[in-house]
Amino acid sequence: MRVPPAILWDSATLSLKLLDQRLLPHEQTYLDITNLQEACAAIATLAVRGAPAIGIAAAYALVVCARSLPEQTATTDLTDLASQLKAARPTAVNLAWAVDRLLKVHQAGGGLDALHREARAIHDEDRAICRAIGAAGAPLIKPGVSVLTHCNAGALAVSELGTATAPLYLSHQAGIPFRVYADETRPLLQGARLTAWELQAAGIDVTLICDNAAAALMASGEIDLVIVGTDRVTRNGDVVNKIGTLNLAVLCRHFGIPFYVACPSSTFDPHTATGADVTIEHRAAQEVLGEQAARVKAHNPAFDVTPAELVSGLITDRGLLDYSSDHPLLPLLEDQQQY
Amino acid sequence: MRVPPAILWDSATLSLKLLDQRLLPHEQTYLDITNLQEACAAIATLAVRGAPAIGIAAAYALVVCARSLPEQTATTDLTDLASQLKAARPTAVNLAWAVDRLLKVHQAGGGLDALHREARAIHDEDRAICRAIGAAGAPLIKPGVSVLTHCNAGALAVSELGTATAPLYLSHQAGIPFRVYADETRPLLQGARLTAWELQAAGIDVTLICDNAAAALMASGEIDLVIVGTDRVTRNGDVVNKIGTLNLAVLCRHFGIPFYVACPSSTFDPHTATGADVTIEHRAAQEVLGEQAARVKAHNPAFDVTPAELVSGLITDRGLLDYSSDHPLLPLLEDQQQY
Repeated sequence: MRVPPAILWDSATLSLKLLDQRLLPHEQTYLDITNLQEACAAIATLAVRGAPAIGIAAAYALVVCARSLPEQTATTDLTDLASQLKAARPTAVNLAWAVDRLLKVHQAGGGLDALHREARAIHDEDRAICRAIGAAGAPLIKPGVSVLTHCNAGALAVSELGTATAPLYLSHQAGIPFRVYADETRPLLQGARLTAWELQAAGIDVTLICDNAAAALMASGEIDLVIVGTDRVTRNGDVVNKIGTLNLAVLCRHFGIPFYVACPSSTFDPHTATGADVTIEHRAAQEVLGEQAARVKAHNPAFDVTPAELVSGLITDRGLLDYSSDHPLLPLLEDQQQY
Repeated sequence: MRVPPAILWDSATLSLKLLDQRLLPHEQTYLDITNLQEACAAIATLAVRGAPAIGIAAAYALVVCARSLPEQTATTDLTDLASQLKAARPTAVNLAWAVDRLLKVHQAGGGLDALHREARAIHDEDRAICRAIGAAGAPLIKPGVSVLTHCNAGALAVSELGTATAPLYLSHQAGIPFRVYADETRPLLQGARLTAWELQAAGIDVTLICDNAAAALMASGEIDLVIVGTDRVTRNGDVVNKIGTLNLAVLCRHFGIPFYVACPSSTFDPHTATGADVTIEHRAAQEVLGEQAARVKAHNPAFDVTPAELVSGLITDRGLLDYSSDHPLLPLLEDQQQY
């Protein structure tokens, strides 16, 4: 069994299908994305999720839209559509980053073919980036270790190996024995529905836990390191990721466990000074209340901010950036300044 | 609206009804407990839960059993039934404590009336204990504070005011304004189903959060103190409580927030040296997997151990026992030695 791709792109017909991740692990259904409304809805409702996958999906969605725009209105319309796409999930910096790459091609006079090439380039680069992240993180996966991860920064969230999972997939392919604990990740259970499912599909030894069980596992010496993904790394190195990430980072500090964050360099946002400057998305109370809870108020932030001081390092396509070194983010800063 | 009692005892007919807390908040159904099997099942499946409520229910259940035993076999049988009851939930020290109190009466030659008096005494004492816990903890509830609690150590878990909730109920009755955040408490969602429901029923300002949101709330300065209950306090002051309690205690230490544990003195177990000596109950994987998760392995410990060094103090019927003082548990040790 292999993990089905989150994004299917047909280059001949310029048509886009997204795996509806809300229905996993029980159903594998693909959504046809034929216009902007469908793309925005898929992104906003988490049918497609994971920062890199959102970026790739948005890039292809813009190509789909460009295909159907009359040529004379293309300039204004595409810029407007791009803004709407970016607003569908404001915390995910890759979304804006990918959309802006296509806009730049468009503003430089590039037509449909050029936009299509750029979207495919983003997708191809992402595959290569995940392999590079895997190579940078694989040395952390010593034989016999137990790794805890949170949410889903896996193959479903990206294009092939995932980010937080890339070192795991590469180490597993290399025959290294290790085990993974997956936080179920309330309220939307991405760990239970997605991470546990895709790791097991790949033949990796995975055990699901409630988010509440992390501290007890750490206290018993069962966890050797934590690897999570991230939606945004700010200029000072703060990490914005799924709610509950900060809990894990604090626990790691207390129990002396390394806390790593895997991400493509596009996740680095040098224009935002610190995590305190990031607008955190608050989602519907109903996600917390579900069927079982009493009808009360609920507070449902989708992300939290882990301060750089609690992070051991970033596992990136530019290598393992050790936060205890001087200026660990300099390579990312230099990359971003090329754009 | 008032919180319905967890335990209904009819002194005239010696009949016991337990509120089936598995069906809350949507259904209020009482189970008739007419024999030992029904009592053990209600305790083991969490129809009745919360350490003190389990003890009271077990005491009344023994009276129900004693009523129907032939006199000549009563001695052996009641001792045997008591052992079975104690085994239904081995982590809850109050269960063994209450059952042993009845056994002592029985072994001293007490008949049905004496057993009945002892069970009612346990229930009456519990009401008084909760009021004393409330009085000890109320000074912590300053006007305007935000309190975070975990699981349900509320009225449903005890007899009237609850333990962790007793300072809240008394302060609310006294007109002090404050707010409560309730952890939903995966996997069984006692916070979402029970705590949020009973606090709202009492008119207290309560907001439900996912367990994952605790760190972010603390980081934003929104939480002034944490109060939880406990199933067992060991001789060295370690606290055994619902899985996820240790997470909160570590977070409190990191963010400089006081972490209090409310409990009756019967929760203190001087015969167990430390939390490491407590057998932690592991429950079925299905509780974690539910309907939504992938079909994978799951690890589901029901409790964790918070080391004494992370506890600010115990809120007890013997007053607020400050862990930073010398020998804070001495009053509890002296009480227990009376038995």
